[in-house]
Amino acid sequence: MSSYEQVLAGNMRSAGRLLRDLDDGLPDARDVLKQLYAHTGQARIIGITGPPGSGKSTLVDALIAFYRKLGKRVGVIAVDPSSPFSGGAILGDRIRMNRHATDEGVFIRSLASRGHLGGLSRSTNDAVTVLDAMGYDPVFIETVGVGQAEVDIVESAHIAVVVTVPGLGDEVQAIKAGILEIADLLCVNKADRSGADRAEHDLQLMLDLRSDQLPRPAIVPTVANTGKGIDALAAEMDRLGARDDEEIWNDRLLRRARRQLEDLIRQGATEAVLMHLKDDMDALVSAIARREVDPYTATERALAVMLDRE
Amino acid sequence: MSSYEQVLAGNMRSAGRLLRDLDDGLPDARDVLKQLYAHTGQARIIGITGPPGSGKSTLVDALIAFYRKLGKRVGVIAVDPSSPFSGGAILGDRIRMNRHATDEGVFIRSLASRGHLGGLSRSTNDAVTVLDAMGYDPVFIETVGVGQAEVDIVESAHIAVVVTVPGLGDEVQAIKAGILEIADLLCVNKADRSGADRAEHDLQLMLDLRSDQLPRPAIVPTVANTGKGIDALAAEMDRLGARDDEEIWNDRLLRRARRQLEDLIRQGATEAVLMHLKDDMDALVSAIARREVDPYTATERALAVMLDRE
Repeated sequence: MSSYEQVLAGNMRSAGRLLRDLDDGLPDARDVLKQLYAHTGQARIIGITGPPGSGKSTLVDALIAFYRKLGKRVGVIAVDPSSPFSGGAILGDRIRMNRHATDEGVFIRSLASRGHLGGLSRSTNDAVTVLDAMGYDPVFIETVGVGQAEVDIVESAHIAVVVTVPGLGDEVQAIKAGILEIADLLCVNKADRSGADRAEHDLQLMLDLRSDQLPRPAIVPTVANTGKGIDALAAEMDRLGARDDEEIWNDRLLRRARRQLEDLIRQGATEAVLMHLKDDMDALVSAIARREVDPYTATERALAVMLDRE
Repeated sequence: MSSYEQVLAGNMRSAGRLLRDLDDGLPDARDVLKQLYAHTGQARIIGITGPPGSGKSTLVDALIAFYRKLGKRVGVIAVDPSSPFSGGAILGDRIRMNRHATDEGVFIRSLASRGHLGGLSRSTNDAVTVLDAMGYDPVFIETVGVGQAEVDIVESAHIAVVVTVPGLGDEVQAIKAGILEIADLLCVNKADRSGADRAEHDLQLMLDLRSDQLPRPAIVPTVANTGKGIDALAAEMDRLGARDDEEIWNDRLLRRARRQLEDLIRQGATEAVLMHLKDDMDALVSAIARREVDPYTATERALAVMLDRE
């Protein structure tokens, strides 16, 4: 069987190998991905983000258990943009998911940043394509933290869920204000803690400030480690992913397609220029460091060679 | 006076306008930036990052006061990659710096993410160029959070300082492991709290795991809101920025130059392709959303038109 057939047949090991090959930039792997794309489009892709300590991993764990009981095969892509140089995702909390590790109906893939951010968005999208083609639905994209990297990644999902907890400090509140603007659904986890009402109240206030025209997100309280509220959260996700309202669903598809295309163009265009420059790159860097040329002029020259050669 | 002359003469309002024009992509502004570049190279550029709640802003505030007493003019670029859509930086802690707001010797510029991450790195570098040319030294780049975005931004400084505090949870410890690898200097702030020794001990352990060949960073305890340890921290910064060891300093200049050039190429190449596509972009996005073409093939076609037209 070809790699393509093995992945489609549900071989997790082949899928893992394919994703590694994609990260390594092997052209054959890209061809397999294109073939697989024709089999995608069934999965609901759900991004989950929120500040450290909000219990995202425990929440995803509870959601896996919930959807497994319904007989669904569940995909999880755990993305850690904060560990760029360590060569592997430092997702200690992933260990908690080990109870699903032997479950053939659950595919968990951890991604750490390899080099630049654009690369991580692309790796995430590649993994979504593979898991979708294999029939996993829903596919969760879980991120560590709440920075721009996470916003970029979660924006490529159909549904963006932002998780928070009672009692976070002001600075985290400020962070939330940014990420709130992309939320389709909000979850106050650890809602058995004191201050849960206050957290929900604060979120409502912040939602009042949203500038966009999207439907106002629901706020669902959960206690992930007891499973409380998980059914309500899943019901909201199902409602948002129901595709009843064709116009709203179409907007979600367009948002995802635009993000994917922009990520791929960004990476492809940059790689093409850097590959074209090759050894000249070091010389240019040295010239800038020695202040023989300013970086703006150096960039213009580098791009001119590449783009204006007609 | 031209914009260039006004900025060089120290006109903060002109500098602010120039930075806005640069963010808006005005070509004239880029020309002014090129002219200003010839006047740069004096400032030590110090990146400061660390998890939310580590007191980075209070620390920068104390450092401003320290360097002002020495008669230095201090620049601060406060970068918030987490507030992409709000149109302005949500840096509540910046309010604390207001005691420097009327001080002509302090230039504070807040940057929120405008669109994509690459844009924020570029805006940060543009602001560094302007502040350096105006004679501010040191120039601090302060970030919110510890994600890949922050790593990218802090890497473009000469000296990367990572701030932490005693008693952070496991998840934040994990985040630190990633960002530790770029640190030139470590600071345990709020060192009057219990657990400060433990925090330093943990950092030492994590430094043992570093894979690179850079000099091992010093760890400086501080209590920013009383000013304790600020002199020791500044002394370490001065030592790292002393340019005594030409080889190490040259490495820092090369690192910064490479990051700058890569950021500019990434953005320039992407913009060039997107501009070339223009109205075709919407059509491509729709075609992907309708599943008439896969995003990988769509990207290849878009890039081929642009790059292989010889």
